Amino acid sequence: MIKNKKVNAAILIIGNEILSGRTQDTNTTTIALWLNSIGVKVQEVRVIPDIEETIVDTVNHLRKVNDYVFTTGGIGPTHDDITAQSISKAFNLNYKIHNEAFKILEAYYKPGEFNEGRQKMVWMPENANLILNPTSGAPGFNVENVFCLPGVPSILKSMLGGIKNKIVGGDPILSHTISLRTVESEIAESLTDVQNNNKDIEIGSYPFFQAGKLGVSIVIRSEDQSKIDQCTSQVLNFVNKKKIEVVDR
Amino acid sequence: MIKNKKVNAAILIIGNEILSGRTQDTNTTTIALWLNSIGVKVQEVRVIPDIEETIVDTVNHLRKVNDYVFTTGGIGPTHDDITAQSISKAFNLNYKIHNEAFKILEAYYKPGEFNEGRQKMVWMPENANLILNPTSGAPGFNVENVFCLPGVPSILKSMLGGIKNKIVGGDPILSHTISLRTVESEIAESLTDVQNNNKDIEIGSYPFFQAGKLGVSIVIRSEDQSKIDQCTSQVLNFVNKKKIEVVDR
Repeated sequence: MIKNKKVNAAILIIGNEILSGRTQDTNTTTIALWLNSIGVKVQEVRVIPDIEETIVDTVNHLRKVNDYVFTTGGIGPTHDDITAQSISKAFNLNYKIHNEAFKILEAYYKPGEFNEGRQKMVWMPENANLILNPTSGAPGFNVENVFCLPGVPSILKSMLGGIKNKIVGGDPILSHTISLRTVESEIAESLTDVQNNNKDIEIGSYPFFQAGKLGVSIVIRSEDQSKIDQCTSQVLNFVNKKKIEVVDR
Repeated sequence: MIKNKKVNAAILIIGNEILSGRTQDTNTTTIALWLNSIGVKVQEVRVIPDIEETIVDTVNHLRKVNDYVFTTGGIGPTHDDITAQSISKAFNLNYKIHNEAFKILEAYYKPGEFNEGRQKMVWMPENANLILNPTSGAPGFNVENVFCLPGVPSILKSMLGGIKNKIVGGDPILSHTISLRTVESEIAESLTDVQNNNKDIEIGSYPFFQAGKLGVSIVIRSEDQSKIDQCTSQVLNFVNKKKIEVVDR
């Protein structure tokens, strides 16, 4: 049997506002769900401050140990937006005006509105590939396997479609969830047996509280639907024996 | 002038469910806001999978470069809960039954309910210090500067009060937000000048969309209220000159 190619990614959230707790990050979830759907598994997320040296070092580590790196934040017009200059430094590229980006924003804004502040957003690593922004004009960019996206969630979401053809994923990662009216300790032993019988499948167990009642969701993940089905029936087998109520399957 | 002591921390979110996008992490925000209030600054967050080697290596790195490390997740009763055994390995300590935790859970559950599944939750690094859990009984623990908390947000929140006396923070990190009816590019240059005049202050600029209108929040952060006030008046000075509407200050 040929082993499916695993393709993995890291997400790098750049921004003091996440670290201070002021802003709740939601971009990780957005990017992770989208990557799953095209067969890319997120194996690490980091949140780091707006400090050039930290960005350079972290990007240079992550891009070597992952197939893809996605950064969010720090590509706007203000002094704390230092992602583009940091990526330039990480790749040892000149940080300069990107002509294509300049033309896009010159056409996007009304005459006279493409001021100095906005022009900062077209400074990028030399020869970066643009990621078009259908929401607010200013493009993101990628250099090799590092894709730089904005921090504003709605704008980020609108840009993902445009990079799908630049990402070569593996088989999509499938998942199946079984929700039970029980507590984890009641099923822990049986679930361990199922995991031991299916070592190449990822089985997670997550307690939930819903409408005042406790429950547990068992999440089975794999690229292979038949293995998920096999695992599911092994779980339902012990669930039936224990007479545990199935809320959703 | 004596420089205030800076105290920093890392947050380590352990769990496949965050990396897959299935679950939205909110514990980072909870912990970061709480740490700010007691004078500890979060300088890094990482999200990693339920893989022992990854947990061991990451904890051993983070605990050396931070005053404190807070982990979330992986301390429940199921097979995918491997934080306690991983922390034992990281510190080269025996992983064994913690007598005090055993007594707490034995008293917490009704006779006969403290089953094998639940007993897994009292296996910890030898001589770990317990973190009491007023919500659901099972304690967290700390070894030296590494504090291990559960993943369920409501339970985690209820446990923070119990560790406050174990954390020695610096001066609380204060912040002031000025919200303006403008766009970032209009204020970028003036804000850069203010930042350059106040190099030891953290000034962030964050666009927002509220009730259909664009705006920018300027967040000024420091341990020193007088420096925040000085910075605020410099910002309001250019805001008034540019006749920009102040939404909130």
